Amino acid sequence: MADSGDGPAARTVLQQCLQARLQVQPAGEQSEAEYVQISRGMVIYVCFFKGASEDILPRMVSTLLNLRLCESSSGKRVSVLELPGSVLIVPQATLGGRPKGRAMQYHQNIGKEDGLRLYSAFVSLCEKELTAASAEVTVKHGTYGNRQVLVLDTNGPYTHLMEF
Amino acid sequence: MADSGDGPAARTVLQQCLQARLQVQPAGEQSEAEYVQISRGMVIYVCFFKGASEDILPRMVSTLLNLRLCESSSGKRVSVLELPGSVLIVPQATLGGRPKGRAMQYHQNIGKEDGLRLYSAFVSLCEKELTAASAEVTVKHGTYGNRQVLVLDTNGPYTHLMEF
Repeated sequence: MADSGDGPAARTVLQQCLQARLQVQPAGEQSEAEYVQISRGMVIYVCFFKGASEDILPRMVSTLLNLRLCESSSGKRVSVLELPGSVLIVPQATLGGRPKGRAMQYHQNIGKEDGLRLYSAFVSLCEKELTAASAEVTVKHGTYGNRQVLVLDTNGPYTHLMEF
Repeated sequence: MADSGDGPAARTVLQQCLQARLQVQPAGEQSEAEYVQISRGMVIYVCFFKGASEDILPRMVSTLLNLRLCESSSGKRVSVLELPGSVLIVPQATLGGRPKGRAMQYHQNIGKEDGLRLYSAFVSLCEKELTAASAEVTVKHGTYGNRQVLVLDTNGPYTHLMEF
């Protein structure tokens, strides 16, 4: 049963950071682990559900980058574009979980291939919007399907949930 | 308008950690900042909505502590009680936010007094359940209403959303 239901097409969790570092390649036998890192800005954890399509991405990116989710150095609430801050995008399939008994199930999550395609398009769109707004900031992102080994340093994460 | 609507009574976001440190007292003129810290375990960000009552707390605590949200060292999904892991509870009013235009509004959030009462009871119940299960683990928590200056070190946060 491909039940997309009446639920959201995408779920995001947003956290503010002073610095965030994500492993994008685990250590191999002859290679060290590789990381991406941002300084001040926002971490976007993202999960797509069954039925999600590229149509939602422009509104999703515009909303996330323009909503006043961050705090400026003077204590004012501003968007990550206004800050201006960098963005670290973390694919996070666990966000789609629903409990069944004591186990979590992920039946509502989008398939791997469609998920990767949407994730890549989401990252590209964020890059385009953010780098157009400021040359000082950057978009970094995790590798879809990998373990997201994350270190987060905050001055208050101001965790928000946004669904689309 | 005290609109509790049909929404949830509480929203939690869960993240796994190798270590997490939270400031519970900012530095004063003559005092250093104070922190609480846990090692391996789970961070629970929690927000209560208008209409929430203590009735929901036992089921909420039991669910969060018994759901298989963590990964054991052998890669098996286990609960934080089974791990056994410690718990860091972070009050996070921002989780109740809803966008209106570019601003976030928090009209659905519970009032400060009721929120503090529920938060304190939630912390106590977590302490009771967790410390009854294992002597090796601990519950730490942030101060309600304060800025939650958090540093998080993960081996993959496995971010989950659970509403009650």
